Amino acid sequence: MKPTPDKSTFHMTPEEFRRHGKAIVDWIADYYERVESLPVMSQAKPGQIRASLPKGAPQKGESFETMLKDVDRLILPGITHWQSPNFFAFFPSNTSFPSIMGEMLSAGLGVQGMLWATSPACTELETHVLDWLVEMLALPKSFSSTTNGGGVIQDTASNSSLCALLAARERATSFASNERGCDGRLVAYTSSQAHSSIEKAVKIAGLGRENLRLIEVDEKFAMRPATLAAQIKQDLSAGRVPCFVSATVGTTSSNAMDPVRAIGEICREHKIWLHVDAAMSGTAALCPEFRWIHDGLELADSYCFNPHKWMFTNFDCDCFYVADRKALINTMSVLPEYLRNQATESGAVIDYRDWHVPLGRRFRALKLWFVIRHYGVEGLQHHVRRHVELAQQFASWIREDKQFELAAPAPLNLVCFRHRAGDAANQSLMDRLNHSGDLYLTHTKLNGKFTLRLCIGQTTTELPHVQRAWRLLRAAASSL
Amino acid sequence: MKPTPDKSTFHMTPEEFRRHGKAIVDWIADYYERVESLPVMSQAKPGQIRASLPKGAPQKGESFETMLKDVDRLILPGITHWQSPNFFAFFPSNTSFPSIMGEMLSAGLGVQGMLWATSPACTELETHVLDWLVEMLALPKSFSSTTNGGGVIQDTASNSSLCALLAARERATSFASNERGCDGRLVAYTSSQAHSSIEKAVKIAGLGRENLRLIEVDEKFAMRPATLAAQIKQDLSAGRVPCFVSATVGTTSSNAMDPVRAIGEICREHKIWLHVDAAMSGTAALCPEFRWIHDGLELADSYCFNPHKWMFTNFDCDCFYVADRKALINTMSVLPEYLRNQATESGAVIDYRDWHVPLGRRFRALKLWFVIRHYGVEGLQHHVRRHVELAQQFASWIREDKQFELAAPAPLNLVCFRHRAGDAANQSLMDRLNHSGDLYLTHTKLNGKFTLRLCIGQTTTELPHVQRAWRLLRAAASSL
Repeated sequence: MKPTPDKSTFHMTPEEFRRHGKAIVDWIADYYERVESLPVMSQAKPGQIRASLPKGAPQKGESFETMLKDVDRLILPGITHWQSPNFFAFFPSNTSFPSIMGEMLSAGLGVQGMLWATSPACTELETHVLDWLVEMLALPKSFSSTTNGGGVIQDTASNSSLCALLAARERATSFASNERGCDGRLVAYTSSQAHSSIEKAVKIAGLGRENLRLIEVDEKFAMRPATLAAQIKQDLSAGRVPCFVSATVGTTSSNAMDPVRAIGEICREHKIWLHVDAAMSGTAALCPEFRWIHDGLELADSYCFNPHKWMFTNFDCDCFYVADRKALINTMSVLPEYLRNQATESGAVIDYRDWHVPLGRRFRALKLWFVIRHYGVEGLQHHVRRHVELAQQFASWIREDKQFELAAPAPLNLVCFRHRAGDAANQSLMDRLNHSGDLYLTHTKLNGKFTLRLCIGQTTTELPHVQRAWRLLRAAASSL
Repeated sequence: MKPTPDKSTFHMTPEEFRRHGKAIVDWIADYYERVESLPVMSQAKPGQIRASLPKGAPQKGESFETMLKDVDRLILPGITHWQSPNFFAFFPSNTSFPSIMGEMLSAGLGVQGMLWATSPACTELETHVLDWLVEMLALPKSFSSTTNGGGVIQDTASNSSLCALLAARERATSFASNERGCDGRLVAYTSSQAHSSIEKAVKIAGLGRENLRLIEVDEKFAMRPATLAAQIKQDLSAGRVPCFVSATVGTTSSNAMDPVRAIGEICREHKIWLHVDAAMSGTAALCPEFRWIHDGLELADSYCFNPHKWMFTNFDCDCFYVADRKALINTMSVLPEYLRNQATESGAVIDYRDWHVPLGRRFRALKLWFVIRHYGVEGLQHHVRRHVELAQQFASWIREDKQFELAAPAPLNLVCFRHRAGDAANQSLMDRLNHSGDLYLTHTKLNGKFTLRLCIGQTTTELPHVQRAWRLLRAAASSL
């Protein structure tokens, strides 16, 4: 009873898939060989891609060849090439061939990992690899599944922050928020430089934006612990319930490092849940020389970092850890009859559906497993060091050039800088470079000033690409 | 400046990827050719898979061949084969080769679709294909992006329900919940048979489980509109704020169909947000003869269905529609400086990050585009009809056999039934069949009785598989 090759089933047969699937593999390999020749930022105009597509769905099936041709003809012009070595915008979202193969296998197996029972390997490989990462990054033992904690793969740091906040909310109210709803007394804290996802989470969880305190930062854009402590005391004396602090290890805007230890001590004193968001920068802890970024992490209740940013793993792959997994599970769990099963009842297994919002989940641990095994710890360390070195070189060129200035410390792989000619000049520099298609970089505002961000972390970015970026930047500046 | 094949970079080269990637393609094709010979439900014991894995991550990289061998040796025994034609458990999560190729391309391109600007094609293809589906399923025009509405791909119906509830919450409170937090007055409604994700969403959004009214159902397990209306009136007279009703088109437990029109009229009268969750069953509307399930859908504010369940599209792919996209966007949007860009400011583009919880997002429209184009509307209709026919045949066998009884109407592709010998006998039947590895089916409780569920929707399930399931079931029953 093999899938029949009979045309009347409309299915593609395994034999056809062998042929077409291999053509896709070649397409991908070709893509990486030519990606550098494509304009990094798509030059498409709003509506251009849609205008090229047929108005309605086809009534009859079309051939694979037509579809693949359309990818080149219709889709590629609308792609911004995140995998180009000349992509320096936002944050890296670097991938690698081993990761792509992990995604292929995961798509091929097509399993659901919502319960341990729905595919034990999907759950156990995930738990195992996330425990590996606890050692690889020298994270606190409390985050390992061999203690009371554990890790789970989420889609994004946004969802990890939301889950952390929800667990914090329930711990602070003895599950009364889940039962009776929020009552407006809860307060959350983060720095004025934290990611927008914290505000989003606070709104989603029913705390209200007004009850998120954006703590001011120091000259390095890091949270001031003394200000945090004072704000907590003020809220307490006003009868409020401080429940959650989110510290950032490497802000999106400028890669600022909040002082986790000092913040953690304040949280411990007041029994406030501390979440640490290390979305991009956490990966740096693969190298012992960068582990200072996590100093004090043993005081945190939860933590996340994204291998899908800076560890050669396809999006989505955010690793979220908690020190007390029961606190998370009791917050998120709802067990209807149709999901009951012996393994769950036995208490001997992890059911990851209780660790996040969605029920269904893909087999994402495969790609992470492939990446770690292909590169080995030493390969991953090599690349983190290389990216940091390249960023430091770029920062040194900025420092030595009188036209430019650094706008923030560059502790790792992100350099924030600006031309001294002011906001309009910097905006114009950025627009000119991005529209040329030669490279792609983005901006932020620091101390109210328009600031360019150059983030180095793409898989194939090497010294010549960074040198070229600097050359292009100076050329553009000279014609300001 | 091609990625260098130099070993010291630790990267896999494009040439190596051509070789290994094609081996993965063959592995997947082989898998589908042999999946029927594997035990459907994994026979692994808790901890068995982890025990076979090395305790720590490798310091040095390993070869591709070792890794692929380990997939067979260590992972496969822990896989429950959702793609087996003998998988009848939970709900289908059917995939297809065109969809797998879409996933491959998406992984290869590795783009981020958080903003239109970060890859215009990722956003525009998604909007376009979701508009196609509005026509393909004959959904109300209000859900098309050419009106005030529009669709977006989410990971799961759980997240769609959460987003719908959040938008409802904000509409009912004029955005005061987002600003000041929930105040405990809001009330949400769904049937006692609704999916657990509704309760989860109500807790997450800060409404509190006590403020979710589980409306009683009729003899077909469908929500009673009169009871809903009475409950809303009672809540209103108690000074509460009814804000959200979730109706289900095809409950997970028994495929019950809530009467959307009657519920919608009540919601209109009281200006309550109506969300319709058609996670699995919505796909049936591809065929005109099944479109009665959506009667009254024009009264809904939001709607979702999952091509990743019953439309040959890899998980994750939930299609979420709203009739008033501004209501959703104003609920979810936070715009930090580092995400500002000219396209966003122009107002001419969609930025999907404002349509759901996560910021980052994969290029998921590719696989949906491939599936629709490969099968064409007629190919998809063919399979929906075939699955429904097979389920109806199975239901007729149950009806004709005195040992068994139907436990609920079987309107589409799910049959709920039980042996007349009682709960213990049914549990034992199910356990015996599942542990044999010959097929996999799951259970629910209806009217307090243990009930078997046989759901037909896997890509390669044909009549012989259903006949065999029935044969095995009767054989197991005869030895009770």
